[in-house]
Amino acid sequence: MASIPLLLMGCGGVGRQLLRHVISCRPLHSQQGVRLRVVGVCDSKSMVAISDVLTSEFRDDFLLQLCEIKSNGSSLLDLTKTGECQVYSGEEIGRKVIDVATALRSSSGLALIDCSASSETIGLLSQVINLDGCVVLANKKPLTSPLEYYDKLVSQPRRLRHESTVGAGLPVIATINRMLSSGDPINRIIGSLSGTLGYVMSEVEGGRPFSEVVTSAKKLGFTEPDPRDDLSGMDVARKALILARLLGHRIELDSIKVESLYPEKMGPANMPLDEFLAKGLPLLDEAIQKRIESAVSNGNVLRYVCLIEESRCGVGLQEVSKDSALGRLQGSDNVVEIYSRCYSKQPLVIQGAGAGNDTTAVGVLADILDIQDIFRHSPSAA
Amino acid sequence: MASIPLLLMGCGGVGRQLLRHVISCRPLHSQQGVRLRVVGVCDSKSMVAISDVLTSEFRDDFLLQLCEIKSNGSSLLDLTKTGECQVYSGEEIGRKVIDVATALRSSSGLALIDCSASSETIGLLSQVINLDGCVVLANKKPLTSPLEYYDKLVSQPRRLRHESTVGAGLPVIATINRMLSSGDPINRIIGSLSGTLGYVMSEVEGGRPFSEVVTSAKKLGFTEPDPRDDLSGMDVARKALILARLLGHRIELDSIKVESLYPEKMGPANMPLDEFLAKGLPLLDEAIQKRIESAVSNGNVLRYVCLIEESRCGVGLQEVSKDSALGRLQGSDNVVEIYSRCYSKQPLVIQGAGAGNDTTAVGVLADILDIQDIFRHSPSAA
Repeated sequence: MASIPLLLMGCGGVGRQLLRHVISCRPLHSQQGVRLRVVGVCDSKSMVAISDVLTSEFRDDFLLQLCEIKSNGSSLLDLTKTGECQVYSGEEIGRKVIDVATALRSSSGLALIDCSASSETIGLLSQVINLDGCVVLANKKPLTSPLEYYDKLVSQPRRLRHESTVGAGLPVIATINRMLSSGDPINRIIGSLSGTLGYVMSEVEGGRPFSEVVTSAKKLGFTEPDPRDDLSGMDVARKALILARLLGHRIELDSIKVESLYPEKMGPANMPLDEFLAKGLPLLDEAIQKRIESAVSNGNVLRYVCLIEESRCGVGLQEVSKDSALGRLQGSDNVVEIYSRCYSKQPLVIQGAGAGNDTTAVGVLADILDIQDIFRHSPSAA
Repeated sequence: MASIPLLLMGCGGVGRQLLRHVISCRPLHSQQGVRLRVVGVCDSKSMVAISDVLTSEFRDDFLLQLCEIKSNGSSLLDLTKTGECQVYSGEEIGRKVIDVATALRSSSGLALIDCSASSETIGLLSQVINLDGCVVLANKKPLTSPLEYYDKLVSQPRRLRHESTVGAGLPVIATINRMLSSGDPINRIIGSLSGTLGYVMSEVEGGRPFSEVVTSAKKLGFTEPDPRDDLSGMDVARKALILARLLGHRIELDSIKVESLYPEKMGPANMPLDEFLAKGLPLLDEAIQKRIESAVSNGNVLRYVCLIEESRCGVGLQEVSKDSALGRLQGSDNVVEIYSRCYSKQPLVIQGAGAGNDTTAVGVLADILDIQDIFRHSPSAA
């Protein structure tokens, strides 16, 4: 039996979905000889932890109550009434996480799960790795921090999993790691890693003006509240950096060439959202339309891609063959084409939904199950 | 440091390629803190093993010499001259494998790698699992044996890996296992899992007669020496059975509905190969042509697929949407579409080369690296 003590950071949509999956998979995991023991949960302000992290765990009904409280926008502090847990706030949280990891070090080690969107967690994550723990990330920010911090985080690769940082639950990272570890060197990755930009480009290709597609995508909830957060390409750039670093590129986020789909003068610092939507966006239609016509005249289609090759890593609009997996992409699916020695003429292609709380949480849970052997063969079990 | 003692069964193209990859990846694996120790190699007739399996291993130059001897069609017995190994033959082989697994049980356990095409290995494989060892398969036959034997082999799923049994190195099995273990139930798998039949169907779709395509595919080395081995669909049926059993179907190979692309009267038992190629094959052109025309008139294309749904598992020709990944498939790539809760409207798609010694061996090596945590945390290391 592998018993994996979990401490979850972040109880937004992904974190809550993860807790629900952990609970609903109990019979399945029991069959597989794995027990996921949730010993602590925190959001940006508070943390609840079980008193005895070595042998105890939160009851499932407590975790479901926690999910409900957070869904309603309430504070974790409301859980103190149940009496089942200790509660920590502010700077106590980090200290308590380290306490828990230290307490578990001599038995199995802690599995710290980062489903937050914070850039502040990397120090804690690296400390937990140093305390013989494991880290599973849905949070992209720790992996896109400066190399100085990144190197510490990835110092023990088997103890770090982060499938859901690129393409949600799509097996992109797992596949790349399999290829790299078995000596099939990857020389090119090209992909569409933003469901929003994928949707926008395939609709624009269908003849609708760019401004109209973006406006309706925003109304449908397909974009961030300020669609410029998608159109800037920065989210794709973070994913590109994560992939490039996996391939061994020693680069920083700001060294990635990122093509924004709006000019700087229309950026959040220079133009309010309302004005951007009403006046800025329509000014962009013609240029995009021309790019598309040019692609079509070359027999290609236009996609917003991340491209990683031996000497470069960039993010932006690119013409691709309409007969490639990337060129045939429709809707909001993600797609990644990987070229290597084994996949040299035709790439290895992975395609599917690359966003959504459920899919992201499933990717995190698969990562947790994937590190079970480390917990199964802990010193105390031997 | 994880030290993984390997015993390789089968030194055909895949086995030899695996040994070469193990050697060429040494610097990489050293960085990752993994050492692959080859302690024995056997083919169907002979076995060479190192004397001290607990601490020693074959030298790389010995393994390269072994590859060369086997490439030249010579016997492993020729290696006795080197004096570096013990040699076993016939029934001694099985006993020696068990001896090695038993000797290693109290330290790390043995990793038994089956790159043979034998249906006779399953007993040994199960015994090695029982001796706390691990098994990695490129050989499909053990997984398609009767359930009585299959159940023993899969009794400890973490100790069994078999990515290369379906789609060579494509991450099909790893992805399905990730989805299943994280509670994303799969309700449908449809795929093209024969590069040969994929090539044949896409060429026939292009207007060439079936008989001409098969004949030229044979000349190009794309088919088995007797192309009926491909056209029977039995190789695809084995892959379908492996996938179906992963999804929990309690079925046997003979309960899969398999559509052969030639009638029984043209089978190897009833018609010599020459006659099949010269006279039998052309008689099949018209029927296939009609099936294709019918598919086209429905706006579809015709593919030779494996289809696994909740209540059925079948292999044969099927009309699929020309806009699906399966429908757009060209050439000899494999493609698998997986439908689940998370991938319900659009499937998760995995596509790429699904055959070849290099790709298959890379898949086996990735599996070996994937079980490293079991060896890293062995009782003796703890």
